[in-house]
This record gives sequence, structure tokens and C-alpha cells, in this order.
Amino acid sequence: MNTDYSMLNKVVNELCDVNTYGFLYHDSKHDIPMPSTDDLAEIMETLKKILFPGYFGNSERHRETVKYYIGAYLDIVNNLLAEQVKRGFCFSCTDKYPDCSDCEQAAKETTMQFISRLPKIKNLLATDVVAAFNGDPAAKNYGETIFCYPSITAVTHYRIAHELLVLGVPLIPRIITEMSHSKTGIDIHPGAEIGEYFFIDHGTGVVIGETCIIGKNVRIYQGVTLGAKSFPLDENGKPIKGIPRHPVVEDDVIIYSNATALGRITIGRGSVVGGNMWITQDVPADTKVLQKKAPDHSSSEVFFL
Amino acid sequence: MNTDYSMLNKVVNELCDVNTYGFLYHDSKHDIPMPSTDDLAEIMETLKKILFPGYFGNSERHRETVKYYIGAYLDIVNNLLAEQVKRGFCFSCTDKYPDCSDCEQAAKETTMQFISRLPKIKNLLATDVVAAFNGDPAAKNYGETIFCYPSITAVTHYRIAHELLVLGVPLIPRIITEMSHSKTGIDIHPGAEIGEYFFIDHGTGVVIGETCIIGKNVRIYQGVTLGAKSFPLDENGKPIKGIPRHPVVEDDVIIYSNATALGRITIGRGSVVGGNMWITQDVPADTKVLQKKAPDHSSSEVFFL
Amino acid sequence: MNTDYSMLNKVVNELCDVNTYGFLYHDSKHDIPMPSTDDLAEIMETLKKILFPGYFGNSERHRETVKYYIGAYLDIVNNLLAEQVKRGFCFSCTDKYPDCSDCEQAAKETTMQFISRLPKIKNLLATDVVAAFNGDPAAKNYGETIFCYPSITAVTHYRIAHELLVLGVPLIPRIITEMSHSKTGIDIHPGAEIGEYFFIDHGTGVVIGETCIIGKNVRIYQGVTLGAKSFPLDENGKPIKGIPRHPVVEDDVIIYSNATALGRITIGRGSVVGGNMWITQDVPADTKVLQKKAPDHSSSEVFFL
Amino acid sequence: MNTDYSMLNKVVNELCDVNTYGFLYHDSKHDIPMPSTDDLAEIMETLKKILFPGYFGNSERHRETVKYYIGAYLDIVNNLLAEQVKRGFCFSCTDKYPDCSDCEQAAKETTMQFISRLPKIKNLLATDVVAAFNGDPAAKNYGETIFCYPSITAVTHYRIAHELLVLGVPLIPRIITEMSHSKTGIDIHPGAEIGEYFFIDHGTGVVIGETCIIGKNVRIYQGVTLGAKSFPLDENGKPIKGIPRHPVVEDDVIIYSNATALGRITIGRGSVVGGNMWITQDVPADTKVLQKKAPDHSSSEVFFL
Amino acid sequence: MNTDYSMLNKVVNELCDVNTYGFLYHDSKHDIPMPSTDDLAEIMETLKKILFPGYFGNSERHRETVKYYIGAYLDIVNNLLAEQVKRGFCFSCTDKYPDCSDCEQAAKETTMQFISRLPKIKNLLATDVVAAFNGDPAAKNYGETIFCYPSITAVTHYRIAHELLVLGVPLIPRIITEMSHSKTGIDIHPGAEIGEYFFIDHGTGVVIGETCIIGKNVRIYQGVTLGAKSFPLDENGKPIKGIPRHPVVEDDVIIYSNATALGRITIGRGSVVGGNMWITQDVPADTKVLQKKAPDHSSSEVFFL
Amino acid sequence: MNTDYSMLNKVVNELCDVNTYGFLYHDSKHDIPMPSTDDLAEIMETLKKILFPGYFGNSERHRETVKYYIGAYLDIVNNLLAEQVKRGFCFSCTDKYPDCSDCEQAAKETTMQFISRLPKIKNLLATDVVAAFNGDPAAKNYGETIFCYPSITAVTHYRIAHELLVLGVPLIPRIITEMSHSKTGIDIHPGAEIGEYFFIDHGTGVVIGETCIIGKNVRIYQGVTLGAKSFPLDENGKPIKGIPRHPVVEDDVIIYSNATALGRITIGRGSVVGGNMWITQDVPADTKVLQKKAPDHSSSEVFFL
Repeated sequence: MNTDYSMLNKVVNELCDVNTYGFLYHDSKHDIPMPSTDDLAEIMETLKKILFPGYFGNSERHRETVKYYIGAYLDIVNNLLAEQVKRGFCFSCTDKYPDCSDCEQAAKETTMQFISRLPKIKNLLATDVVAAFNGDPAAKNYGETIFCYPSITAVTHYRIAHELLVLGVPLIPRIITEMSHSKTGIDIHPGAEIGEYFFIDHGTGVVIGETCIIGKNVRIYQGVTLGAKSFPLDENGKPIKGIPRHPVVEDDVIIYSNATALGRITIGRGSVVGGNMWITQDVPADTKVLQKKAPDHSSSEVFFL
Repeated sequence: MNTDYSMLNKVVNELCDVNTYGFLYHDSKHDIPMPSTDDLAEIMETLKKILFPGYFGNSERHRETVKYYIGAYLDIVNNLLAEQVKRGFCFSCTDKYPDCSDCEQAAKETTMQFISRLPKIKNLLATDVVAAFNGDPAAKNYGETIFCYPSITAVTHYRIAHELLVLGVPLIPRIITEMSHSKTGIDIHPGAEIGEYFFIDHGTGVVIGETCIIGKNVRIYQGVTLGAKSFPLDENGKPIKGIPRHPVVEDDVIIYSNATALGRITIGRGSVVGGNMWITQDVPADTKVLQKKAPDHSSSEVFFL
Repeated sequence: MNTDYSMLNKVVNELCDVNTYGFLYHDSKHDIPMPSTDDLAEIMETLKKILFPGYFGNSERHRETVKYYIGAYLDIVNNLLAEQVKRGFCFSCTDKYPDCSDCEQAAKETTMQFISRLPKIKNLLATDVVAAFNGDPAAKNYGETIFCYPSITAVTHYRIAHELLVLGVPLIPRIITEMSHSKTGIDIHPGAEIGEYFFIDHGTGVVIGETCIIGKNVRIYQGVTLGAKSFPLDENGKPIKGIPRHPVVEDDVIIYSNATALGRITIGRGSVVGGNMWITQDVPADTKVLQKKAPDHSSSEVFFL
Repeated sequence: MNTDYSMLNKVVNELCDVNTYGFLYHDSKHDIPMPSTDDLAEIMETLKKILFPGYFGNSERHRETVKYYIGAYLDIVNNLLAEQVKRGFCFSCTDKYPDCSDCEQAAKETTMQFISRLPKIKNLLATDVVAAFNGDPAAKNYGETIFCYPSITAVTHYRIAHELLVLGVPLIPRIITEMSHSKTGIDIHPGAEIGEYFFIDHGTGVVIGETCIIGKNVRIYQGVTLGAKSFPLDENGKPIKGIPRHPVVEDDVIIYSNATALGRITIGRGSVVGGNMWITQDVPADTKVLQKKAPDHSSSEVFFL
Repeated sequence: MNTDYSMLNKVVNELCDVNTYGFLYHDSKHDIPMPSTDDLAEIMETLKKILFPGYFGNSERHRETVKYYIGAYLDIVNNLLAEQVKRGFCFSCTDKYPDCSDCEQAAKETTMQFISRLPKIKNLLATDVVAAFNGDPAAKNYGETIFCYPSITAVTHYRIAHELLVLGVPLIPRIITEMSHSKTGIDIHPGAEIGEYFFIDHGTGVVIGETCIIGKNVRIYQGVTLGAKSFPLDENGKPIKGIPRHPVVEDDVIIYSNATALGRITIGRGSVVGGNMWITQDVPADTKVLQKKAPDHSSSEVFFL
Repeated sequence: MNTDYSMLNKVVNELCDVNTYGFLYHDSKHDIPMPSTDDLAEIMETLKKILFPGYFGNSERHRETVKYYIGAYLDIVNNLLAEQVKRGFCFSCTDKYPDCSDCEQAAKETTMQFISRLPKIKNLLATDVVAAFNGDPAAKNYGETIFCYPSITAVTHYRIAHELLVLGVPLIPRIITEMSHSKTGIDIHPGAEIGEYFFIDHGTGVVIGETCIIGKNVRIYQGVTLGAKSFPLDENGKPIKGIPRHPVVEDDVIIYSNATALGRITIGRGSVVGGNMWITQDVPADTKVLQKKAPDHSSSEVFFL
């Protein structure tokens, strides 16, 4: 049996009918392509070599030469990232503005500002590594957490993405956090604000929403959701964007696995939220919230098989 | 110390002992290899370029030339997919049939039927993009959801896999949905039936079982399970395959994070299932099912630290 | 606008300041690089070709020649793995010992011992395949579970990593299980002990802790946590490492989706733990633990929308 | 023994001393990188798929769909080549001009003109294929010469490079002919003018100089040089560039292996130059130039061993 | 300036005009693609690992395991080569036959015959290695000639290609020798017959024609041509294919650099042909043919500068 | 038809018969693999980026950051090359010595000495670039010769290989010059000594033998051989290795295309050797050696067709 080319040509015509394109076709106004996920992956790999020298990359293991590598990597990131930031700006332009002549210039400036903040990011990540080691009895040393803990991967992506979002870069921050979401199962929106010494153990299923504010020294476990309870719609029935709608988690809080906190509530300093808990109201400081007699099966339906 | 080659040879012999092969060795009857996950990945990448032109791929950003790309991509998919479908047929043959002389022919026909349904799949996905944008206050525009939302990735894989499963293709649909399961943490069985305007926010941990039926305009959140309660065994103690055993979710339902619905129950049109809920009985239409006083910690064991 | 090179050079100097390196810089004492995740990925791919011949790889589909492939693959694994094991030993050395002159020798011996245990691992995995087929009504045949079930991926990684950990290899086992954690969302610590016929359905979000002991013929579902309730701190406020703190799960137990069992409790032989259950005390043998009246919404707050 | 890092740092400083950079350092004025040989290789591969559809590439083997491929390939070449042409313009700018603001625009226009000439180039190459088949008794069919004859490779590169050079593109044409020089051993300067039905058998060692003019239906063999006899120097002792200094070869000439013709001489229509001949004066039309009694060893020193 | 898409579309139409396709379009009758040069390169790399174990490949360096590698490599070559041989048969079919239903079967049989001749080819190549070591004072050991001498590369390709040609395989042998022609500058037609202990020093520019017959223990140098003097045309002015037209070189002959021998002449056993010589008549056995007084410049035009 | 596995197994056994291995099997004594041509290619690419910054590589185009790249590249070369040099030492060991325990140490020291000579090599190459620009009227600027002239490629490889050979490294130098031989058709033995300002135009077919000594400011053309006339055999009929047997070419000499000079003769300072000349005796200084009346066809057999 031969291929039915008349059918194939018909399908091509249907798929290319301008009327059906709609928003499924990205119609670039300024001939700038979409961001490159491959280049963004390379940028993230290179940033890890800069931030954790000796752990990533192959050859940066001597103090006498490590400065060459870091210098070269920074220059590479500067070039590659400026291009991706430009694409991010242009992607947004196509929705609203008639032209984006300044995108390239803005991208270069923004990227340089980002570069200048890398030492600050590195210092924050150092606290996250300490938190991971102190927070997991199974951790043997700092290096193990840097090299293979999902928490460090997710938080590194988040801290970089967050800085770019603060600098006004569209789209790129979300792509960066989705990379680590895919790899670790931890979904941190780049808009969230997270303090130092942050640790997520195991991590799969964690969701931290766009307007969350998390203090210092917070530890959470797999499956924890810091989400929105609901969101208001505008007069057209569309969700109103950007309203604070996720929890505030103060310093020194621990939230155990699969717990859920929803809405603009505050979980007070030093509190502990037990596993599987469902929280939609404020929790005062220094409070322990656990299931009422819950975790034992005497409160369950138990019978012999 | 030198390698102990007598040990190594001994291990080879043990591993190659025909008696120990059992079902761990795939003994192809017709010299057809297993499906290629690399080629299936390329097929999926190419289908994304066809379905969302301008978003994926590098050069398809002008209306004047996009038809060339779509035509070439369709032809490539036609060739690559026919080969994989053939391998799927042959994989099943090896279990039951004495020969599979018609596999190649059947694969070509099936692939062409699949191609002819792509415009329909594209239209469905357009509704899913609208649902993603309307369902997430953090979404800035349609394009962002197409380019980086796990929901669109998972649903695209599902809709393609489902169509192949409906056409009778074995194994391949499951491989395709496992690809997106691995990438997004969303596990949709290709056998499920899902209506238009479907959106899964965050998504990690979602499970949608083989015999689920989901209506239009349904929105679910991370960690939601639409599963089987239990499954009957045959006289040999083996599970009986193919029995309807997963929920029916009617139009306009919302199911919040980590809720679980089990068994062939119906969640009626317009209902809302709260987070963490555990549902094993029918839910009438227009019902809101939430934890009794649950989400507040007054019903929990609370004490000061 | 030109790049501000004085800023860039300043950032390089800040990032390279020896005082700021701290533990973020891996300072290899013996000029041995970190383990290569690329090579470990190749090792795992090759082991899959050895353990499931005909399923993975392209050409190993004839009984008459399969021994050549398995012999060559074993030799390749022997060479590649010895190098990675050496790196694992050296990584740990840098924390404590003045020199690691025996690392290479120890790595070769350890690797050979690992190789000699592959037939045993293969036999265990055969039981896991049977368990997957019997445990999932959607499974069409053994081959489908081998080729695309996350459970088989995760358990294969675990069984290999566990054997290396038992042989005293540092770091490498954790890297290997994190690979499958990333791919499947299933996080099994290589220190756990798991008996034959083990199956995890769907799997995303499963966590099995370092000191778990799981018997034969156990089946668990997505989102199940077998975790620690809390962990004691030493006089410096640091967690004490290595204390048994995770559940013991006896033979023939089933634990349904999103259930949590915490602490060194025992879930007795033949018991069933229902979905979403929260267990922190022993469960006697042959017990069924379900939510009290739970899964029906009459015990929930229900109202009409 | 440890690496001597003070020596290594000293070498870095020596190699980076601005005074020693000289012309060995390419100091781009406008931040435009050198042309990419990888991208130029991809451009040439794509042009071969356009010019000889069905021979190169994997899938273009049906008349019904070949137009899609050619359309997409043309668009890809248009994009990729415009970038490389721009780099070629900028490379020249850095030597002479204060700025190259029009390089991008000029590159786009030039590339479009090149695209418009592809049908003409295709027609010329069709004559070269005929010449190859007719000129080599070992050729079995046209397809064999297209798919594996060095002559077709070298002439395809030349005809494309020549067209770019005629359009005023610097550097790129030379890179393109050096690619085929490396692959085939045939060195045709892109400035040469070569008529239709041109064939070079075997080809290794052939040199065709910058100002050669070659008519129609010419056939040459391996090792033939069409070179310059000498070149005049200017008052500074530097060679004067661009003076006609290579042979004119008229229609229907054959030049056998390893013959050399030097200087602005004319080899007249229909002449034959024998192997190893050394020609520095005009050859009239319809002349056969062979070694006097040469090729027989009676004119050589012959003796029995 | 924007791309002129109407021009681009016009060029596409011109290039796709069925009338202009002609022989420049490969119109496969049976939907079999052209041979894959990538796969043929892999086949050649694999054959080198089989023929020279331990030299090529990474891990085959222990006598105890080398058989596994050779077994696996042979099986891989058997599979890959059968596919390429089939494509070679089909390529020829498209010129003459109405169908090629037996191509696949013929390809498998032919490939197996080729496999069975590999030990013979290996024995021949062993003699070529000896000849290279004995023929070059710069060679330090056998291994150096195997690992980096162009002669061994070219002769290995030739001996494999020749065996395929003898087995009746079209096109593929020529592709294989063109690979080494490109890499080494040595152009040996696969139809030539060459005896054992053959060595080509340096090699660039060597041409050995289709009907050459070369005896044992022959050594030639760079630039040597063993070519055709001329070739008869048929009544249509086309060259008559397949007539013996290249030299016979008997045992123990040495031909120095850039010498040329043309036509069906015989260079007798034990003779030596000097550099640059031009030979078109038989050379008796044990003869030394040198330039008459030639190589000294007293016979040249010499003058003081 | 099925594969004949008994034949295939028989061939494996024949190819693996220890008696037939002979020197075709590389039997590494110390478990050190053969040098990696891929790594050597990467070393050469990296050295080009060090020696010609801004021309090769993508990002090294700013004076402010180029030192980072050069530092990192040097460190990479230092690591990669030490490994390859070790393999070179071990390869030679296997022929003669009982153990090579010092190979690693010797390789590190040798590599560092090589690194320390890179500035000298760079200075030499600067003179070669000047010679290329001055020697070719078609050259537009220095950069063009650096970026695409075969002469610069071949001489760069030669100068690096020569330095390694002078430092006593076996095998590796020859591999490095064969790389450029393959790419350019220029075969320079790494043992030759070549002064500054060296240029080879076109280059295909040039051979420069092991014991050549070439002065400053020498220019040669394609096809020139500087070879051995013959070589003495020892009492066993084997060539005696290492005897000076190639020409000495003094300063300021030009040798035109396809000329041949053989034996330990001297071509005196300032002389010119014409194309196709055959030289086996000394040429005094300031002499022009051309064919006697040669290049005109009046001395040839000329007749009208």
C-alpha cells in the first residue's frame, strides 16, 4: 500500500489554513525566535560550574587555575544569557508593543545587572547547602548535597530565575524553574520570595506559588503545597492576575510531607505543620499543628482481613 | 590487582544460561527490534512543531514559508511513525501469533489514519491552551502556556497517544504517555477519555487511570488521583484486565490538589472537590465536597512549642 | 552599550576570593575529579542491556549471539564502574583521610564483587516484573512492564545502588537512585532493604527512607511516604546520622496512594493501608487500615453550589 | 609530581601580553564573531539536498512531497547564510572601515540574490553530472557520480562559492572551497570562471588559480595545475593582488594527469595536453601536446637490475 | 529589509518543476532510501575494531574478553551492512528492473558471504602491515603503521570494498573507497586486484584504476598514477564501460613518487620505476626505468640568479 | 532467509584464535589504552584557540576577557595532553620494557615542558602567517590565511608535533601530523626541522621527510616531494632506521609545484627550483633550476588533431 499523498497534502492545507492558526501559531513581529531551551540549559550548567566550582565541570579542581574557568564561564554566560533575555523581551513585545528596538540594549544591561548579583546568589546558596546537610540525617557531607540533592538543584534554579524576574525579564524565569520542576518534581514559581537556609527534603510534588513569602531557615518536605485558595475573576470571568494569594511562611518553620496551606495566610515563626495537614487560616508563631489523634489507626476504620 | 576474568566469564555464562532468560529476554520472532524511544521522542518533537508552529523549531516564523515546514514535518512523521507502529504491532505478535506478515501494511494504514486526525487533535489542544490561560492567574499569555506549562506537554502527549490507542496500536501509546509522565510527573493513561478545555495546574503526582471518562472544561490540580478502588481477580488470582474501574468526571468539574477519587463513581457536572478529599462514592452535580471544618487547625491537635 | 568589563572582572574576583570558596568549592586532594554523571548514566544503560537483553539496545535479539553482547557489556561496565567507584572513594577521602593510595585497588575489587552479584540482582528483578504484571490490570504482558513502567526503572536503579552501598561504595549509590528519582518521581534511598516481588504503581511522589525494611510481595502506590517521624540531634544540634528511623513493612502488604507511615513502626504481614492514611504506630498483621467512614462525602462539608 | 602552576600562569601571561597579540589576535570591532565553519557545513549539506533531491537527506523521495522539503531547506539556507555573509562583511570591515552598520542589511540582500540564482546553478551542475558520466568509463550511471564522485563535490562547492564571490561576499567563498579542497584534494579558487560540462577525474592535487578562465566541456585529471608563473611585487616587495596571471582554457580541452600550465597563456579550443606536460606558452586550438617520445622508456635510462 | 518571500516561493517552484528534475532527482521506485554514509562509516569503524583488535575501540584490550567484542561487532556489522547492501541493490534496480523483491534476501546472503571472508581479509592485511613496516625506515613498529599510516587505512577500505564488489554489490564498494580517498588522498578503485604485502608510502595523489592487476610485494609512492591511456567510445560517442585499460604490475615492483603508467601495459616482476617517470609501454622484468641523466640539473636550464 | 549463526560463530572463533592474533592484536601490558584520536583532535582545536585567539572558538573576542579563556584552555590542554603523552609512552613500552611505572610521571613533566614552549611556537607561527600573506597574491589579509589556509593548518600541526617529538614523546607526534595530512594533503614528518617564515601554497601532495632540514623563509608549492632516494638495509634486509636521508633546504629557497628533491642533498640559499624538476644532486646557492627549454611545447611532440 502506498502513502495517500492527496490526504497528506489535504492535512497540510488544513493545518496551514491561516484561519486556524490562531494563537497556536507564534507570529513573531521582529523576526526574533523563541528562547532556546538548549541554550538556557547550557547557561544553567555553566552557572552551576561558577557557583559550585570543582563539583561540576571536569577540570576546575585546582585553586591556582580556577579563576580562569570562572572568568571564561562568566563571559560565556554574559553572551548567551543576553541573547535569551532579548528573546524574552521580544516575546512579550509581540503581544503589546509596536516595536522592540531597545530590546537588545535592555537585554545587555539587564544581563550585566544579573551578573553583578551572582556573588549574592552564591552566598544564599551556601546557606541552602548548610540547611540541606543539617536537615537530613542521611546526608554524609556538604558535597553530597551539592552534587546530588534535588533541593539544591531546585533552589539554584529558583534563585537565579527569581533574580531575573526581579530585573523585569519575561518568560525566561518561568522556563528556568520549569527545567528544575521537570527534573526534581519541585515547582517553585520564580515570583516567590524565599529567605536563606531553605531546604526541601525529597521534594517531589512540592508547589510554591507566585506570591509566597518564605522566611529564613524554613524546611519543607515532599508534596507540600503552598497554594492559592481561589482567585477572583474580572468582569469578563477571567482571573485577575498578580493579586497576593499564597501563604506567608515566617522564619524557622517546618512543614511536613503532603501538607497543604492555601490562601494569603501566615504561618507564624517557629511553627511546625504536620504531614497531610490542610491549612487555610493563620497559624500563630511557635505552634505545632498536627492531626487530632490522627496518625494512629485507632481513629480509623480497622478490621482484620 | 588484575581483573578476575574467570569470574567475569562465569557471570556471563550465568546471565546467558537459556534457562534463566525467561521473560527477561525479549525473543523477537520476526527480527523486528523494540520500538525506539529516541525516534518516538523525535516524532513527538516534530508533532509539536506541526501543532504549535513558531513555538518549537527554529525557523518556522514566517507565514509565507510555514507551509513548507509543516508539509515536510508531516511527511517525516508519517515515515518515522509507521516504523514505530509496526514495531508495536510486532511486539504484540510475538506473544500470540505465528506470523505478522501484515504488520507493515497495517502500520502504514494506521499511521495515515492518525495523520488525517491531526487537525482534530490541534483543535482540541487549542481549547486546552485557552483552559490553561484562564485557569492560572500566573499565566501571562497563551504563548507562555504553550511554551512552558507541564499541562500542555502532558495533554499533548496524551491526546496523541489516545488517538493511536483508539486506532489499535499496542505499546506505543503507553511509551508516549510515559515520556510526559517522566517529564511532568503527570501520569495519564492513554486509554482515558478526556474532553476539550482540560487543564492540570502544576501537575506533579496526578494519576488518571485507564478507564476514566472526563468531560469538558475540567480543571484539576497537582497530586489528584482518579484511580481504581480495587480490581477483581480471575480464577487464577490474576487481575481481570479492561474492566471499567476509574471515575467518570462530568463537565465543568474542579478537583483541587491531592484529592483522590477511586472506583467507577461519577463526579457530577459542575461539582468541586476540595484538596486532599477522599472520594469513593458518586458526587451529585453542582456539589462542593470539602473537609468538614477541616482546613482549619482548630480541628487539629494544636499546642505551643 | 558595551559590556562593562570592569564589573565582570570584579565579579570574577569576588567569586574567586579564597575566603568565599568555603565548602562551595570542591578541593580535590588527590586530583581525582567528581564522579561523571554521564558515565554513570552509560553504566546504567549498559546494565539494563545486560539484565533485560533484547529489550534495550538495538541488536541483541538473537539467542545465538546474545552472549557476545552480554560479555562485552559486562567488560565495559567493569571498566567504567571501577573508575566511578574510585572517584566515590576519593570523594569521601577528601573529607577525612590524608591519602587514598588504595582507592584504585579497592575500587577494582569492589567492582568485581558487584559484577559477581549481577545474576542475583537479575533474579530479584525477575520477581519485580512478575509483581508489576500481576499488580496492574492495565499491564498487557511482562514486556510492557519491563520496557515502560516507572516501577521497573526505579527498582532496577535501587537494587543496583543498594548492592554498591552494601559493598561500601560512597556517593555513587545516591547518584544512581537520584537518576531514577528524577526520571520517575520515585525516591528510594539506596540504604533501604527491599524483598522480592516489589511493585510501585504510578509511583510519582513515593519516598522510601534510608532505614526502611520491606518484605516480600509488597505493593505500594503513588505518593506513599515511608519516612522518619523526627530525628534526634547531637549535643551540637546536628542530626545524629544512621539511626533506624523508618518503617518496617512485612510481607504481602499493600499501601494505597498518598498514605504516609512515619517512624520505626512495623506494618504487619498481609496488612492493607488505605489511601491518604497517616500511620505513626505499629499495624498488626492482617489488618486493614482505612479512613473512618472517610472516603464518602457525607462526612465532609457538602453543599450545593 | 604536581603541576607547576607558576609556570602555567607565566605562560598565560606571555600568551596574553597585548604586545604579542599582533595580528594573531582577531580583534573584532563590532562584536561579530568569525564565520562558523559548522554552520557553513550545514548550509552546504542543505544546498546539496536542494540541488540533488532524493540523493542527500533521508526522506525526500516522493515527488508528491519533495516541494515541502525544498521550500523548508531554502528558507533555512536563507536564514543561516545571511548570518554567515554578515560575518564575512564584518570580518573585512575590521580591517578598513570605521563601522559596518549596513552589514546586516547588505547580507540579507546579497543572500536573497544568491537564492534567486540557485536554479541557474542547478542547471550548470546538471551539465557537470553529464560530463562526469560521459568522461569516466567506470561510472555506472548519473546517480553514482552525484552520490560519490569527488568532482561533483568540488564543482558544487566551487559554483556556489563563485556565485557568492561575484556578489561581493568576502572570506565565505574561500572557506567554502577550502571545505571541498580538504575533502577531495581539489583546490579551485572561487574567483576562477568555469563553463558548463566540467569534469575532473580522481582529482587529488588539482589546483585551479584565482584568475583562470575555463570554457565549456573541459575535462582534467588528478594533479593538474593551472597556476601562476610568477607574480609582480609592488614597491614594498609585496605581491600585487588581483592581476590576471592564470591560464585561459578554451572549450573542449582535455588536460591529462599531473600536467602543469602556468601564467596567462591560452590553451586553444579542442586541444589535448598530455600527462606530466609543463606548459608556459600558448597552445593553439586543436593541438595535441605530448612528451617527445616521452612515455616510452627507451628514452630513459634503463638497465637490468 | 524583509525577506522577499515571493521570490523565495518562485525559486521553490522553479527547483520543483517536474520538467527540471531530470536525473538530478533520485526517484526511488521502491521507497528505499540512498545508502547511508553515516552507517557505512560506522561499519568501517567496526570492521577496523574486528580486524585490528586493541588498536581501535576503547576496551578490547584483554585476551580474555576480546572474543565478546569481536562477536558483538560481527553481529552489528552483519545487521548494518545487510541494510546498506540492500540499498545498493535497490539503487541499481531503479535504473533497469521493474521490481526488486529479492533485494532484501540477496543482501542478507551476500552479507553473510562477506562475513565469512573476513578471516581471509585479515590475513591479507597482516601482510600489508609487514610491508608498511619494512618499506618505511621511519616506521618504529607494526603498531604505529596500523594506528596511523594512510596506507593501512586505504588498503583496508580497498580490500573490504573489493570483496563486496566481487560479490556483486553495486555502489557501496565505490562509496567505501571514496571514504578513504577523501581521508588519505589515495584513490584505489574497488575493481582493482591487488596481491599481498602491498604498501603505499605517503600516498596523497595515488590513483589505481578499475582494471589494474597488482602482484605481491609491490610498493608505490605518493602521486603514482596507474591509469588508462584513453578509452574507446561506442557508436553514440559514449565510453565503452569495463574494458581492461589499466596496467598490470607484477610481483616485487617498486614505483617511485609521481610516476605515471598508462594503459594495459605490464610492468614486469622485480622492476623499479623511477620518480616522475611516464610509462605507456611494457617494462620487462627486472628492469630499472629512470629519467635519462634526468634528475641532475646539468640537463636543465640552470643559471645564477 | 535467516542469518547463519553457525557460520558467524565460526568466523568469530577464527578471528579470535590466539595464533592468528599476531601483531594485529594490540596486547597492552599495562592496561593503558591506545591514544584517543578524539582527545588529540580536541587538544589541537584548543591549542588553535590559544595560539590564534579570536579566530577559533566562539567567545574570545574581547581583550578584557581573553586571558580567562587562554588560562582555562592551557589548563585543559595540560590535563588532556598529559594523558595522551602517557599513552604514547606506554604504547612504546609494550614493545620493549618490562614495566612503565614512571610513564605517568614522565608524561606530566614532558607536558609541562611542552606548555612552557608554547610562546616560542606562537612566535614561529606568526612568521608563518606573514609568509603566507606575502607569498600568495590571492590572500586578502593575515586573518584569511589564519582562518582558512591549509598551510597554516599543516604548519601548526607540524610545529606542535615537532616540539613533542623533540621532547621524546613517541607515536603522538605522528598522529598529530597525520591529522593535518588527512585534512590538507600535506605530509610533514614531525622529525623534520623547519625554520621561520615557512609557506606551502595549495599544498596537496607535499611530502617532507623525517630528516629534512629547512631554513628560514622557504616557500614551496603543491606536490613538492623532499624525500629519500633510497635507504640502506641491515643484514636482515630490514631498513636501517634514522639515517639522514632527506634534503637540506637553505634559507630563501622557492620550490615550485610537483618538483622532487631526493636524498641528503643541499639546495643552496636563495635558489629556485622549477615546477616538475627532479633533483638528486646538490644545488648551489643562488641557482635557478628549470627544465631545459622545457615548458614550451616545441620540445614536445605536437601535432594537429
